[in-house]
Amino acid sequence: MSVHVRRDADFQPELRKNLVTREWVVIARGRGKRPSDFAVPTGEQEPVPEHDSKCPFCTGNEKNTPPEVFAVRDGGGANSGGWTVRVVPNKFAALRREGSDQVRQVGLHTARDGHGAHEVIIESPAHNLDLWEMTEGQVESVIEACQQRFLAYESGEILHYVLVFRNHGARAGTSLEHPHSQLIAAPVMPRQLQVEMQGAAAYWEYLGKCVYCALIEDELRSGERIVLETRHFIGVTAFAGRYPFETWILPKRRAIRFAAMSEEEAADLARVLKDTLGRLAGCLNRPSYNYAIHTAPAAEHNVRAYHWHMEIFPRITTLGGFELGSDIYINVVAPEEAAVFLREAKAPVG
Amino acid sequence: MSVHVRRDADFQPELRKNLVTREWVVIARGRGKRPSDFAVPTGEQEPVPEHDSKCPFCTGNEKNTPPEVFAVRDGGGANSGGWTVRVVPNKFAALRREGSDQVRQVGLHTARDGHGAHEVIIESPAHNLDLWEMTEGQVESVIEACQQRFLAYESGEILHYVLVFRNHGARAGTSLEHPHSQLIAAPVMPRQLQVEMQGAAAYWEYLGKCVYCALIEDELRSGERIVLETRHFIGVTAFAGRYPFETWILPKRRAIRFAAMSEEEAADLARVLKDTLGRLAGCLNRPSYNYAIHTAPAAEHNVRAYHWHMEIFPRITTLGGFELGSDIYINVVAPEEAAVFLREAKAPVG
Repeated sequence: MSVHVRRDADFQPELRKNLVTREWVVIARGRGKRPSDFAVPTGEQEPVPEHDSKCPFCTGNEKNTPPEVFAVRDGGGANSGGWTVRVVPNKFAALRREGSDQVRQVGLHTARDGHGAHEVIIESPAHNLDLWEMTEGQVESVIEACQQRFLAYESGEILHYVLVFRNHGARAGTSLEHPHSQLIAAPVMPRQLQVEMQGAAAYWEYLGKCVYCALIEDELRSGERIVLETRHFIGVTAFAGRYPFETWILPKRRAIRFAAMSEEEAADLARVLKDTLGRLAGCLNRPSYNYAIHTAPAAEHNVRAYHWHMEIFPRITTLGGFELGSDIYINVVAPEEAAVFLREAKAPVG
Repeated sequence: MSVHVRRDADFQPELRKNLVTREWVVIARGRGKRPSDFAVPTGEQEPVPEHDSKCPFCTGNEKNTPPEVFAVRDGGGANSGGWTVRVVPNKFAALRREGSDQVRQVGLHTARDGHGAHEVIIESPAHNLDLWEMTEGQVESVIEACQQRFLAYESGEILHYVLVFRNHGARAGTSLEHPHSQLIAAPVMPRQLQVEMQGAAAYWEYLGKCVYCALIEDELRSGERIVLETRHFIGVTAFAGRYPFETWILPKRRAIRFAAMSEEEAADLARVLKDTLGRLAGCLNRPSYNYAIHTAPAAEHNVRAYHWHMEIFPRITTLGGFELGSDIYINVVAPEEAAVFLREAKAPVG
């Protein structure tokens, strides 16, 4: 069960607007003011072994997944051991290679085959490591694999929308402990990206610049929500975050596509991602979390007004009927306070 | 923890479009095909007493809530016993009476005071009943209370958006067992309603009729997703439902506002709501669920193209990074199959 945070009766709540999507969220600070009030009770977490002979993603079980489509390897042939990162089709895919791209009518309704792709990015041979526990080199390999898979789909025509996301922990929807991300390629544009691209285009139209670039400048100027800054990236709690401790990682150099990142930027991102997830793990006692890479489809290469980035959502509270019914989220931790805690936080030891 | 449903490797997934909001969802049927595969294990549910002396919503504890703003009473004075339904301000309100309605700039960002209202509708003196376990008369009183509170806010000027919603069970975000709904009145329009109203307006513009009326006709014609039909309402699983067993209750007579319902319609709704929630409880072993009343703000009284309704979301699966990152939901139960189960289901006995 998730942590239930009762709102502080003395805190004046605030409505905040997401600068890009223009959605409102309610910041209604919880009674608890220290991160430990939101942390997962330690008792809930059972130790996980380094290798699980029943796990289809562990070394030695390569035959238990569909054949790999990509791997970073020190040695060994395809579908044998010796890999550091391995990408395989998801056996229980939400979208499949099969099917047509024709839209059909079902009575008044519109449907089409669930044509697409669904892959698993197995991030390490070790069964029990979260991403922040891996070496920087290992995280770099994970990022390389993501870039390669984006590029593989971007050369196609039909599946022009690709999302790479990570579910960590039971509250974040994962069903397998072994560290992995997922990729879904779809033939349709999702609402989230549509709204972000429209928001960025409107901002550009009115103010002549990228809304994410403006956000980075503003956040660096105020410093209030900055978690970390490196040569190429900033990590920042979202001003109108929907989730407590929601943190965005933004590249300073504007590029509409994640896959367009340079090698140097990718190496820096590995450090930033490891660092940020480690801080969240330290601050919230290894919470469940999701992240997603928000990137423009390659087919939108003539779009100027976008800026790829990552959004990390710790899953320490439960969405209720207000969120689901209105799409206005109630966030019980002020992003400025979350940033203070995250700036001071260190990854757990051992 | 929620039930993890592995998708059926042999089921061809389908992308479906919500007729009103035009969002896509993926219907990727789970391996499990009987509702018991999704049902909450019985062991998780502990018996709840009929009266809890520590519960602020139980009879005798009226002093432990802020003073009531509405009640249905057989006797007794305000804030004493003798009530059947009681409405009180939420002590831990997400939005408050205080504050101004001025928008302010915070650097580049926009914010405003969390001015609004947040109330609790205590639905019964009994501590341990879900809505479907109450008498029809009791459910009618709950609906009357909702109507009265909508009317109270609709006469105001600033808080023109009002949502009544219900969180039942820990997975649906509730922190108090005592049966209750909540009302939040906000000074801003939420995205969900905006998108629904825009979708309904666009449909009207192109096709000259209400999209929800068209939906009702189409669902009655096909019968595939109908759960129940009464004189004034239909209960139907949503063609592009985001959640397994997502069920909508629609009034046959188009009215843009919930509060405009006649007494006869309200009595019928009480039966339909009790019946539908009872079927879900029987089918899924008393799952956590949310519902929300979707109604146009009174300030939009010149809007023709809307149709108030209720949406019920059982919370038997966990949202992951794909849903949160793209806003495309993966639903592991085909709505047509859910409807078959719900048509046959009965409320649990005892």
